[in-house]
Amino acid sequence: MSIVVVGTVAFDTVETPFGKGENVLGGSATYFSTSASFFTDVSLVAVVGEDFPEEHVSFLKSRNIDTSGLQRIPGKTFHWSGRYGYDLNEAQTLDTQLNVLMEFQPDLPESYRDAEYLFLANIDPDLQMQVLEQVKAPKLIACDTMNFWISSKPDSLKKVLQKVDIVVINEGEARQLTGEANLIKAARQIIALGCKRLVVKRGEYGVLMFTSDSVFAAPAYPLEEVFDPTGAGDTFAGGFMGYLANTGDLSEAGIRQAIIFGSVMASFNVEDFSLNRMKRLDYREIETRYKSFKSLTNFRDIVI
Amino acid sequence: MSIVVVGTVAFDTVETPFGKGENVLGGSATYFSTSASFFTDVSLVAVVGEDFPEEHVSFLKSRNIDTSGLQRIPGKTFHWSGRYGYDLNEAQTLDTQLNVLMEFQPDLPESYRDAEYLFLANIDPDLQMQVLEQVKAPKLIACDTMNFWISSKPDSLKKVLQKVDIVVINEGEARQLTGEANLIKAARQIIALGCKRLVVKRGEYGVLMFTSDSVFAAPAYPLEEVFDPTGAGDTFAGGFMGYLANTGDLSEAGIRQAIIFGSVMASFNVEDFSLNRMKRLDYREIETRYKSFKSLTNFRDIVI
Repeated sequence: MSIVVVGTVAFDTVETPFGKGENVLGGSATYFSTSASFFTDVSLVAVVGEDFPEEHVSFLKSRNIDTSGLQRIPGKTFHWSGRYGYDLNEAQTLDTQLNVLMEFQPDLPESYRDAEYLFLANIDPDLQMQVLEQVKAPKLIACDTMNFWISSKPDSLKKVLQKVDIVVINEGEARQLTGEANLIKAARQIIALGCKRLVVKRGEYGVLMFTSDSVFAAPAYPLEEVFDPTGAGDTFAGGFMGYLANTGDLSEAGIRQAIIFGSVMASFNVEDFSLNRMKRLDYREIETRYKSFKSLTNFRDIVI
Repeated sequence: MSIVVVGTVAFDTVETPFGKGENVLGGSATYFSTSASFFTDVSLVAVVGEDFPEEHVSFLKSRNIDTSGLQRIPGKTFHWSGRYGYDLNEAQTLDTQLNVLMEFQPDLPESYRDAEYLFLANIDPDLQMQVLEQVKAPKLIACDTMNFWISSKPDSLKKVLQKVDIVVINEGEARQLTGEANLIKAARQIIALGCKRLVVKRGEYGVLMFTSDSVFAAPAYPLEEVFDPTGAGDTFAGGFMGYLANTGDLSEAGIRQAIIFGSVMASFNVEDFSLNRMKRLDYREIETRYKSFKSLTNFRDIVI
């Protein structure tokens, strides 16, 4: 099964306590599609400017990612600059140059419209809705968003949330969206908006997944060296959706397994700047780390 | 097997967004021993003043806790006042009146000195050392501490840490003790000080347990209503040690199971002020919640 992802392809300038990456490849659709490409075929919809080097497109193609939905228009590519302190859970945005992103009109190539799996990465909810109107009958739709859209376009966002199966956001966003400090109550409210499932990303504390009648807690993989958390959330989502698309198993057990694959992918991604770790990752490492998640969390049941 | 715990018995005045408890029963040894008493026999060493009501002693006795090590001396009982905001992970201390705690000289009744399990709750590390000198040959010793001792008595504290098997502290304390932001590196350094095992409490994010060659991650139980986090850490430690003393199983699997029992106990304790939830807890509820932890964390393995 193939996935369509709509989001950003960007240049990032990132500072962490461990180094700096200038004008490196980034963007939600880039991280998502690279991560998902380890599991399934991915088709990408995004926009870049005239300054976007062919080398980056070649990289995506080398991962077997369909880039026919990657628009190149006059102007400069979206550029994000941010900094992380020793608390690597939260980035401080230093600068955002939207550039060509301001003119982005997602237009899905005909071959994308039968997509069975769709991921709406963090972009303007009105654009997410435009994408939803172009796809035929996806088996599974998931979406992300961010604080900026929660405060500036709450109504558009809520319309999107009604039409997706899985919402994948971080802890602060879940609280902001509902105005509820308690995460379990917040989750209940978000599910009541119309989605079936909420996945809450908590950085180094892992992931909580909620349905109306279940909760699943997955830790983050404990790492001695976290170089750059940029893209961890999208890499997580890519592994998660990629695995689901690969197996087609949408049972609770199948979806939990996909959460772990997502967590595995995110844990690799933060080990280096930009997509550098993804570029030298092979599937055996992914399987081995999945096993490590099992030993990390495993404990005996009791008999009552 | 029985446990000896040395720590505080106190009055707490606690404000949370959900209410206020004034001069309620508190203290590390109180929470620890009450929690452990669901699993094993507990003997308590602590000090109170003349103002400490017999009713509280009766409560401890009703839990089968041996209070022959509870000294009552002239003066007032230790009193802690604190406040929690909506972020229930961290208390703001409003007032600390040490009172009789300033004169505390832990003196273990003869019957305590053969203890096989010993928990040194958060008190002056010099007093923790005095206790260590009084016990004969415990099978397992664990200890807690706090930011105040880490900064004011680092050398005394390090001597204690060399003599215990398991250190049970919170995330901030682990970082403070080592000056290391990365928790995995911090854990490695703490284990290098001489203990065999480090248990890091992370509030609503659960627990990480480290040995020199393994890591175990346990989530916190997701609760819709957290009324008062006071005592959660000691209640966790009580369930953890209590279960270990009950089974005597110090294998990795046995210790992991004990971590979950500790987490179960803490999850109940925060559901009400002071020890109110413990007072109406029964063992079947504990077993049922253990099962819920299993469903909360369970996911399929993969075959490579």
